[in-house]
Amino acid sequence: MKALLIYSGGMDSTVLLYAFQREIKLCLAFNYGSKHNDKEYQMASLNSVKTGIPLIRINLDFINKYFKSDLLQSGGEIPEGHYEDESMKSTVVPFRNGIMLAIAVGLAESRNLDTVLIGNHAGDHAIYPDCRLDFILPMSKAAFYGTYNGVNIEAPFMAKTKRDIAEIGRDLDVDFSLTYSCYKGGDVHCGLCGTCTERIEALKGFDNTKYLQPSLF
Amino acid sequence: MKALLIYSGGMDSTVLLYAFQREIKLCLAFNYGSKHNDKEYQMASLNSVKTGIPLIRINLDFINKYFKSDLLQSGGEIPEGHYEDESMKSTVVPFRNGIMLAIAVGLAESRNLDTVLIGNHAGDHAIYPDCRLDFILPMSKAAFYGTYNGVNIEAPFMAKTKRDIAEIGRDLDVDFSLTYSCYKGGDVHCGLCGTCTERIEALKGFDNTKYLQPSLF
Repeated sequence: MKALLIYSGGMDSTVLLYAFQREIKLCLAFNYGSKHNDKEYQMASLNSVKTGIPLIRINLDFINKYFKSDLLQSGGEIPEGHYEDESMKSTVVPFRNGIMLAIAVGLAESRNLDTVLIGNHAGDHAIYPDCRLDFILPMSKAAFYGTYNGVNIEAPFMAKTKRDIAEIGRDLDVDFSLTYSCYKGGDVHCGLCGTCTERIEALKGFDNTKYLQPSLF
Repeated sequence: MKALLIYSGGMDSTVLLYAFQREIKLCLAFNYGSKHNDKEYQMASLNSVKTGIPLIRINLDFINKYFKSDLLQSGGEIPEGHYEDESMKSTVVPFRNGIMLAIAVGLAESRNLDTVLIGNHAGDHAIYPDCRLDFILPMSKAAFYGTYNGVNIEAPFMAKTKRDIAEIGRDLDVDFSLTYSCYKGGDVHCGLCGTCTERIEALKGFDNTKYLQPSLF
């Protein structure tokens, strides 16, 4: 497998990076104008340097300009509470995974890479339609038949919980303090938004003072 | 049907624009750095004004920067000869339709539109894997399941030849002189590249002096 990783710099894709370090030839980050994209990207850069795997960042500023979502700089306040709450739906960016996957597939085909890796997991299914198997399966088929090389899409964490991923990361010695999650995009994690809540729950019993706060800031 | 049209300003998508004029609420053009994007866009702008349907243009400059294709400004010379020739493969932009469709689906969901229209046709199948039914069908399924509103992808010209489309356009009184095709992107159609050859064949017996040259230049 010669893979391209869709890499945000959050917990899930960072664990994926270390789990498939040998197979990944290129990391791809996106700036779609979310409040936390730049903070995530600092962590993505750092882990790219640590692993020696090159990282490309692609600008999708049209999303911030034309799409509606509270995750975006152009949107409203980030809601607080649990990730699976109805209120978190306002943070959905329509078809974001479809867009990121399609670009990744095109770039993989251009670079003779055969696989695109994406870190969506079971906890995402509640509010993100484009994280579910109903979406991932036909999207993989579209990628395979829509390219000369038959590019594959693989989502190894599809059936895993965030807690499972945290444990896989711990076994791989992933330094979670070098990952960023908070939707508010501040210098320190707010600890109150959906992703922060999810992150805290996933890392319960781990060294929280180390894992909650990115050490960089 | 409340539709978003992926609109280049070429023959096929212009016929689609006039065929579904009542249902189309928004036109979406892309600038991915091809040699002919700007010329196409002038025609797209013109037909947007004529029909009163708004047109958004989205910049995908990462394609020109990171992808390999002779269609791009960063690529080599445009080959001459028939569209279906092996040599024309160098003009394929990897997974271009996948990328354009994914963005269109996200924007449609953001604007409460239920359908994305795309103008690919039977003549495209030879060299473009992402114009074939094998690609379009799973991509439609991914769009439907990956959005809250269940956005549909429709490709009404899927089984039509370029000649069929030209005849549909003639019946609708489409002014083909207000469309642009040439891959070389010059002020006048070169008449020698794959798309020009295809255009000339499709419009055979029509008033060629009118149809070959865009009247604007």
